[in-house]
Amino acid sequence: MAKTKLKIIPLGGLGEIGKNMMAMEYGNDIIVIDSGLMFPEEEMLGVDLVIPDINYLLENKEKVRGIIITHGHEDHIGALPYILPQLNVPVYSTRLVHGLISLKMRDRKTLVKAKLNIIPAGGKFSLGQFKIEFFAVCHSIADAVGLIIQTPLGTIVHSGDFKLDYTPVGGRPTDLSRLAQLGGQGVLLLLSDSTYVELPGYTPSEMVVGEAIDSIMANAKGRVIITTFASLISRAQQVIDAAAKHGRRVFIVGRSMSDTTKLAMELGYLEAPPGIIGRLDELRGLPPEKIVLLTTGSQGEPTSALVRIANGDHRQLHIIKGDTVIISASAIPGNESLVNKTMDSLFRQGAHVLYDKIARVHVHGHGAQEELKLLLNLVKPKFFIPIHGEYRHLSLHTKLAHTAGIAPENTFVLEDGDILELSAKSGKVVGRVACGNVYVDGLSVGDIGGVVLRNRRMLSQDGMVVVILAINQQTGRLVGRPDVVSRGFVDTDSPESMKMLKESCDMVAKVLDHDGKRLAEWGSINNRVRDTLYKFYYERTRRRPMILPVMVKV
Amino acid sequence: MAKTKLKIIPLGGLGEIGKNMMAMEYGNDIIVIDSGLMFPEEEMLGVDLVIPDINYLLENKEKVRGIIITHGHEDHIGALPYILPQLNVPVYSTRLVHGLISLKMRDRKTLVKAKLNIIPAGGKFSLGQFKIEFFAVCHSIADAVGLIIQTPLGTIVHSGDFKLDYTPVGGRPTDLSRLAQLGGQGVLLLLSDSTYVELPGYTPSEMVVGEAIDSIMANAKGRVIITTFASLISRAQQVIDAAAKHGRRVFIVGRSMSDTTKLAMELGYLEAPPGIIGRLDELRGLPPEKIVLLTTGSQGEPTSALVRIANGDHRQLHIIKGDTVIISASAIPGNESLVNKTMDSLFRQGAHVLYDKIARVHVHGHGAQEELKLLLNLVKPKFFIPIHGEYRHLSLHTKLAHTAGIAPENTFVLEDGDILELSAKSGKVVGRVACGNVYVDGLSVGDIGGVVLRNRRMLSQDGMVVVILAINQQTGRLVGRPDVVSRGFVDTDSPESMKMLKESCDMVAKVLDHDGKRLAEWGSINNRVRDTLYKFYYERTRRRPMILPVMVKV
Repeated sequence: MAKTKLKIIPLGGLGEIGKNMMAMEYGNDIIVIDSGLMFPEEEMLGVDLVIPDINYLLENKEKVRGIIITHGHEDHIGALPYILPQLNVPVYSTRLVHGLISLKMRDRKTLVKAKLNIIPAGGKFSLGQFKIEFFAVCHSIADAVGLIIQTPLGTIVHSGDFKLDYTPVGGRPTDLSRLAQLGGQGVLLLLSDSTYVELPGYTPSEMVVGEAIDSIMANAKGRVIITTFASLISRAQQVIDAAAKHGRRVFIVGRSMSDTTKLAMELGYLEAPPGIIGRLDELRGLPPEKIVLLTTGSQGEPTSALVRIANGDHRQLHIIKGDTVIISASAIPGNESLVNKTMDSLFRQGAHVLYDKIARVHVHGHGAQEELKLLLNLVKPKFFIPIHGEYRHLSLHTKLAHTAGIAPENTFVLEDGDILELSAKSGKVVGRVACGNVYVDGLSVGDIGGVVLRNRRMLSQDGMVVVILAINQQTGRLVGRPDVVSRGFVDTDSPESMKMLKESCDMVAKVLDHDGKRLAEWGSINNRVRDTLYKFYYERTRRRPMILPVMVKV
Repeated sequence: MAKTKLKIIPLGGLGEIGKNMMAMEYGNDIIVIDSGLMFPEEEMLGVDLVIPDINYLLENKEKVRGIIITHGHEDHIGALPYILPQLNVPVYSTRLVHGLISLKMRDRKTLVKAKLNIIPAGGKFSLGQFKIEFFAVCHSIADAVGLIIQTPLGTIVHSGDFKLDYTPVGGRPTDLSRLAQLGGQGVLLLLSDSTYVELPGYTPSEMVVGEAIDSIMANAKGRVIITTFASLISRAQQVIDAAAKHGRRVFIVGRSMSDTTKLAMELGYLEAPPGIIGRLDELRGLPPEKIVLLTTGSQGEPTSALVRIANGDHRQLHIIKGDTVIISASAIPGNESLVNKTMDSLFRQGAHVLYDKIARVHVHGHGAQEELKLLLNLVKPKFFIPIHGEYRHLSLHTKLAHTAGIAPENTFVLEDGDILELSAKSGKVVGRVACGNVYVDGLSVGDIGGVVLRNRRMLSQDGMVVVILAINQQTGRLVGRPDVVSRGFVDTDSPESMKMLKESCDMVAKVLDHDGKRLAEWGSINNRVRDTLYKFYYERTRRRPMILPVMVKV
């Protein structure tokens, strides 16, 4: 009998392999790691969110023992409200993550009663034949963990999203000693975060941002307005600490920032001396040099507090002379243009704006090359799988692993859906599971597919023309002149465009009625109208609107 | 009588002020600097190109003496084929720029007979009361110049796009001595490139890229495939030089790369030892280590040679084991995702890919902070206007100018359309000229406006539904059941969606025909149908398709 093998299956990441979801399978047990969502790419027109395809898990529902969450970012927890109603298994996470998931389930009004378990860093639990232990890692959100997974074949280490940071805010560094201890005992497989593998050196400590914020608050003559990710609680802590030191009060603006900081305070992840946090209605009368505003909007989100302030659209808050604005974040790919426009608006209104390109007001949450090498050196795994990165990141991380002494035949660059089968001796991709992205658009999950998106793309480029044809039921012939209605194609206020559209009606009439004969069946009329108009419009405009003939029988 | 003042009017740059076009006016003379195009931003759906609004120039046609071009990039010359037919004035440029403009006019089949004048760096000419002198600058294209403009009020220096580079390829550094000389004599106004004002230090010399390419070619065991901007001729020169040194032949792939290198060779800007440049049909049989492919595709353009090679879609060329690919360029904002996907495809096929984040294979073409300060120190202008940058860049550049000793009241952050009036003593923004962006879409220039784009945006998000209503001419009542056709809204293969669409038809029938009375006029029917369906569809799907009722009288 063949010995049972271990299967590793990355299940989703919208190009970042294994980022949102990953499965591990041994015999009759499957565990799922993370359950996140991605924001749609530019070509996914009108799509609100993208979640992983869990068909493989649904087909093997009876084997799935639980979902383990490494940390509380959207791309690791955001799909839970969509997935738990279909796959109602227990969820395991640290306390802050548990709080964030609960907020999310409440916001989404998810009706399913999920079993959410809290496990602290260092805590252990079993799921089938898997024995899991959380170990502390530093990341751009508190209470993040990596996983130590004992399997019958050996120990697996999953880094989660991590960086090292020997001087973290809150004093909870990545647990290097536990990893070193494991390395000494022998580790079968390391899966490690590849996000910043392109960067040489080390990622700076969160502490350097605290120093920058402290110095800015000490020197600013007016208000200090800071925006960052709502989930970056250590940053909020540094803002509160610096404000307290310099005799300023902190006012929290924007719903997600309020919700998250409130939760973090309740759970003890964020501390503020009494009287530091103020309500917006207490702002009036307070001198500018006593004020710090901590707001949402670091990604230039159009409805966020900072963007409304920058555009003069906020009911209560406006930029005033002497304001210093700190963008304590970097733009997530795709958001650059929104962030830049927000900064430009702030500069226009005379604010002094500090951002990552010109001041040390942000550090990111993933390890750079030297950190990745240190992890490889401590854990000394037999097998290595880079995760959390696009293909080039995984390739580069694999090369890094080779330089750190991992045998090339023991490193695997996977794609989402690949099934890697691992024995104690060797590994091989043995197949694939169905693994597309599932689009959430409004209330529907998954009904938007290629055809709908292709149509939206076409409509977005050159608009559309509806051609209305009245056909006599008896004679089968065209009645009157066809009519056209267009949207997004040409300027319908221009007489020239209207003339062209009229001509196109005549053209259709001529084509359909030239010999006075009964028209053929609808399919062929439809094609003739389309072909005629595509050609006509393209010649006249070099545009290709969607053409939609509709027929009314009269 | 008031003394004549000088007017400075930035006319276009799609957010980068004065980048594409700028006007200077003194008395009865207007000169225009650059005439470039911009690529559309994400929200300008279906728009091909954006060109500056030249209404102000057309209104003052009799004053416009000529268009002066600083260098041959698209964002400085690309609008000429659209503008010269309306504003047929002489154009002044260096020889390579002249060649590129001629290529462009030929490609666009512009019928206008433009008067294109060649002026070498150091050359002088007069346009009305303006006396212009070109001075050499380094930039990421050969034969770039800045402008020295003598006016009755004093001397103006316009930097063009520039960097310093003490060791440029081709041995033509930025003409610092001429600038120093001018600084000694007194300069009224400096307009200077702000593109890289966020970067501290100096931009590295083009030479460092040559060294990197040389070392890669020396060590690569297989073919070397290099992509860069077609116009970056100094980069092509370094590729050819390194290939010659290491016994490789160079094969040029892609139309724009072929056209530009051919032109550059004819004009003497690019030199290749005999036998180095090969034709693609000579590739067969040549050992990989003797081959360099120089291709288009550095921006991930879907139809470019490199992208087709990366995707396995190129007729003649495929990635083979041992290929080294050098992306000798950086992604222009907006192109990151295309470039990343191209790199991922190359990695997937096993190529060894080198790019700017992990190797010194590209340097950019604009000066960093120390270069900008050096220019300010040499030129010592009385007035300063930062140009070529978004608002934040201009703000930062102004602050840099203050630290370099320019009086704050003598620095001006302008926006496109602003009219800055300058005397020898002071300057002030006195008004604005109409200055929107003009959209080119297919054959039309300027007919696409807000309404068309708003419709395209709406169609792109949730698609559309056409509602066909047959109305009896005599009775004014609905005939039969209304019909709907949708595109880009829901999956029309799904029975549930079809059921919902059918229900919506019933809904419309009920609303319009509930009391059997004659229907009101079309406007009101139209509104009632829309309101009913918006509400119905939103409740069912949380989507807001465009709803287009059409009526057929029967």
